[in-house]
Amino acid sequence: MKIGIIGLGLMGGSMGLALKDLSQVHNEPIHRILGYDNNPLHAQQALNLGLVDECVELSEIWQCDVVFLSVPVSGIVELIHSLSPDMLQSNITLIDLGGAKVEILKSIPSWLRQSFVGAHPMCGTEFFGPSAAFGELYRNNIVILADVEQSGSYQVEVAKDIFIGIGMKILKMSSNEHDKHIALISHMPHIMSYALANATLSQEDPQTILALVGGGFRSMSRLSKSSPQMWKDIFKQNKQNVLEAMSYFQEKFDLARSLLEHDDWDGLEEFMARANTLQKFL
Amino acid sequence: MKIGIIGLGLMGGSMGLALKDLSQVHNEPIHRILGYDNNPLHAQQALNLGLVDECVELSEIWQCDVVFLSVPVSGIVELIHSLSPDMLQSNITLIDLGGAKVEILKSIPSWLRQSFVGAHPMCGTEFFGPSAAFGELYRNNIVILADVEQSGSYQVEVAKDIFIGIGMKILKMSSNEHDKHIALISHMPHIMSYALANATLSQEDPQTILALVGGGFRSMSRLSKSSPQMWKDIFKQNKQNVLEAMSYFQEKFDLARSLLEHDDWDGLEEFMARANTLQKFL
Repeated sequence: MKIGIIGLGLMGGSMGLALKDLSQVHNEPIHRILGYDNNPLHAQQALNLGLVDECVELSEIWQCDVVFLSVPVSGIVELIHSLSPDMLQSNITLIDLGGAKVEILKSIPSWLRQSFVGAHPMCGTEFFGPSAAFGELYRNNIVILADVEQSGSYQVEVAKDIFIGIGMKILKMSSNEHDKHIALISHMPHIMSYALANATLSQEDPQTILALVGGGFRSMSRLSKSSPQMWKDIFKQNKQNVLEAMSYFQEKFDLARSLLEHDDWDGLEEFMARANTLQKFL
Repeated sequence: MKIGIIGLGLMGGSMGLALKDLSQVHNEPIHRILGYDNNPLHAQQALNLGLVDECVELSEIWQCDVVFLSVPVSGIVELIHSLSPDMLQSNITLIDLGGAKVEILKSIPSWLRQSFVGAHPMCGTEFFGPSAAFGELYRNNIVILADVEQSGSYQVEVAKDIFIGIGMKILKMSSNEHDKHIALISHMPHIMSYALANATLSQEDPQTILALVGGGFRSMSRLSKSSPQMWKDIFKQNKQNVLEAMSYFQEKFDLARSLLEHDDWDGLEEFMARANTLQKFL
C-alpha cells in the first residue's frame, strides 16, 4: 500500500511521521509514504525532516491507495475540482483533514463521493509549516468523520484503520453539526484571540504592556499566532456558523459588562461560578 | 527574622514554600515562617502540606518582621483598616500581593504607608487554595512594585531582597499604570474566558460539544476555572480600567465581525497577520 500526502505542513507532515510507526492498514503493509507540497521549499524541508519517504509530482500522488488532503480548506475544494476518474487509482481512499466540512463535502462530484472520507482531527498547534510537524500530534485525540454514510464502506474502514492505528478516537457526525459545534469551540475562539492580540498591539506603548504578561495572557493570545491564510479559508467556508458563535459569546460578554457597570458583584460572582462548572465536562 | 503569611492559598502557600529555600533576607537569617488563614481547614491543609512552619493567631503574625498579605484584594483593604500602630512590630515590612493596586495603596493610613510595599507577582495558575501551592510559582517571573517612592527605603530593600531571592525580576511602576495595563492583559482576558465558558455551557447540548474540544478551546477556557470570589474583588477594585479594556477588545472583535459579514477576506487576513506580530514582543 502506498500512502500519499498533499500538503506537508503541521497536519500533513505530522501524519507522515505518525504513519511511519504504523506497519499495516487493512491488513496491507505500507510500502511508501509519498508527499507533495506546491511550495518547493516546504517539499524540500519535509524531506530533510524525514516527514515522508519521497516527494513526487501530484499525478503520482493520485496513484496511491490512500491520499490525505492536508492543505487549507479552499485548496481542498480546488483539488477536488481538478480531479477526473482517469487520474485516480481505481480503489483510492481520499481523506481530507480540513477544519470545516460542509463546503468541502458539498463540492465532491457524485462519481468521487464514495472514494472520499471527510475527517477533522481535533488537534493542532498554533505553529505551521513542515517544521511544526511532530509524530505525536494525533495520539489520544479525537477525529471527527463527517457524513460517513456517503462514503464507501471500504474507504471508511481504511480511514478508521489508519486513525485508530495512529492512536485517535473516532467520532461520527453530520457535517452540519460538525461545522456548527466547531465554530463555537474552535473557529470563534481564534477570532477572540486575534482580537485580543490586536487590542493590545493598538495600545500606545504595547512593548511596555507586553513586558508584563503572565501565563493568562499567553494562554489567551496563543491562538493569535495561527496561520492567517489557513484561517481566512476556514472563516470563509464556515462564515454563518462563526458569526452565530460570535453572537453567543457576545451575549455573555455583554452580560458580564452589564453586571460590572451596575456593580452587581453577586451577579458577577454567580456568572463566574457558572463558568467554573465547565470543568466537569472537560 | 520571622516572616508571616496571611492567606495560605496559591500565592501565600507558594510564597511559604519558596521562602524555605531562602537562607537570609537583608543579611538576616530567616528563623520561622508563620502562617494564618481565616479558614481553619486551609490552615490545617497548609500545615499538612508543609507550606509554613506554624499556623498562629493573627496577632502573632503582626509581630513578624515581614508580613505578606495574600488574600483577595478586598480582604487586604479590610486587614489594613483593622491595623493600629500598637499591634505591629515597630520595624515591620508589610507586602501585599494583590492583583489590583490603586484601591489598596489608597486605603493605607499615612502612619502605615512607609511600612507598606505594594507588589503584584505576575504569575499564577487557574487553581486556588493551599493544595494549589508550589514552590516554583514565582521563579523567573516578574513582580511589579507599585508606587515604591511612598514606601520606606528599608522596606523596599527587604521586599526586593525577598523577591530577587526567590528568583523574580523586579519592575517598578505607578499603581495607576499597573491597574490600567493589567486590566488589559490579565483582568479582561479572564472575563473573555468566563464568557466563552458560559456561551458554551448555554448551548442545548454542551456535553456533546465539549466532547470535541481540542487544545485551542482548552487554552481559551483555562482561566474560566479561576476563583469567582477572588476575581469579583479584583473586578470591583479595578472596574473602570476593566470596562475600558473590554471596550478595546470589543472594538477589534467588532472589526473582525464586520470583515466577516462583508466577505472582506483580504481584510480579515490582514487583521490576523497584524495579530501575528504580537509574537515579536513576547
